[in-house]
Amino acid sequence: MRETFRAELGSLTADLAKAARLTGVMMTNASTALSQADLGLAELVISGDGELRMSCDDMDQRCVRLLVLQAPVATDLRMLVAALHAVGDLDRMRNLAQHIAKIARMKHPTVPIPGDVRPVFARMSLLATSLAQDAANAIESQDPLSAHRLAQADEEVDALRRRVFRILFSEDWSHGVEPAVDAALIGRYYERFADHAVAIARQVSFLVTGLPPER
Amino acid sequence: MRETFRAELGSLTADLAKAARLTGVMMTNASTALSQADLGLAELVISGDGELRMSCDDMDQRCVRLLVLQAPVATDLRMLVAALHAVGDLDRMRNLAQHIAKIARMKHPTVPIPGDVRPVFARMSLLATSLAQDAANAIESQDPLSAHRLAQADEEVDALRRRVFRILFSEDWSHGVEPAVDAALIGRYYERFADHAVAIARQVSFLVTGLPPER
Repeated sequence: MRETFRAELGSLTADLAKAARLTGVMMTNASTALSQADLGLAELVISGDGELRMSCDDMDQRCVRLLVLQAPVATDLRMLVAALHAVGDLDRMRNLAQHIAKIARMKHPTVPIPGDVRPVFARMSLLATSLAQDAANAIESQDPLSAHRLAQADEEVDALRRRVFRILFSEDWSHGVEPAVDAALIGRYYERFADHAVAIARQVSFLVTGLPPER
Repeated sequence: MRETFRAELGSLTADLAKAARLTGVMMTNASTALSQADLGLAELVISGDGELRMSCDDMDQRCVRLLVLQAPVATDLRMLVAALHAVGDLDRMRNLAQHIAKIARMKHPTVPIPGDVRPVFARMSLLATSLAQDAANAIESQDPLSAHRLAQADEEVDALRRRVFRILFSEDWSHGVEPAVDAALIGRYYERFADHAVAIARQVSFLVTGLPPER
């Protein structure tokens, strides 16, 4: 019984890390689809989403089943609670990558992001994706990211978002309303994706230290 | 022991319903602050947020404590799992109402929403707020909203969001980039707020039926 529980918990953790990596890949692909008006890649992100969604539902149910059947305590319980929260975050990250892929598909063959904003989004995408990787590593190694690293990531995402608004609202903006609206929403999706990755990393910290995540 | 548990679960449920109602009030106030450029009301939403945030943190910790100390099974366990999910949703709803209040504060004394979009946002706000009320009632009575009611709400929010985009992207839009960007983001915040309220109502359904929420 005890060994089965350990095995199931191990497999749940491995699946969580895998799903976190997959959201990162989805976001990278969605970003490439957007910046290169690559319809095939956008479709790939959109059609490949069902699997991750089912995986999130499945992990959620496994958490609940382990809670019911095993009535775990202490670290095991904390792990399941952290996993339940993390599944919710992953489900949102999946959804946000989808939103970006859908904008790429809707605007195809146009590249909806004018030149001035492109480098900012390239950086936001890289940051968001690497935070998803960090979250995956943190889950796998049960080694929380340093609070400093997380605060730094938060700050950089905020700064990038402010930069997007400065560009959109400047007098030099000559691309009109629609690309500005797209850019504002895309910036928001990157920001939320990064927030969720940070939230997962903070859950790992809760898991390891037993203290509720600071925020 | 058993009676204490029942009492704690009851008080947790009551606090969840109260928090759901409070997010609805925050959203109504944020919307009024926005449509009437009411700086005082915007500040009230922003400064009153700390209490709800602490209440969310507190409810989260109470869920975990009850899981640890009581190792509940069956309905009680489902209730705690549903409560954990609902706290996450309430925390986001709180945040989204804040975002709207902050836009009102930032743009004051201007009303950032041009006339054409205002009635759409009035409807979105009403819908979002009444979904928060519905979620509170569902928690309190443990009576899930009908699937039909939820599907209807989802559809109406989607339709309203599409209407916002039609207005922003039409040739008649003469208000320029900044109000369009604000309106697109505000529409997104209403939509997400409504989504979270619906998610809570679906959690109640999980609680009552034991079946994972459909989506």
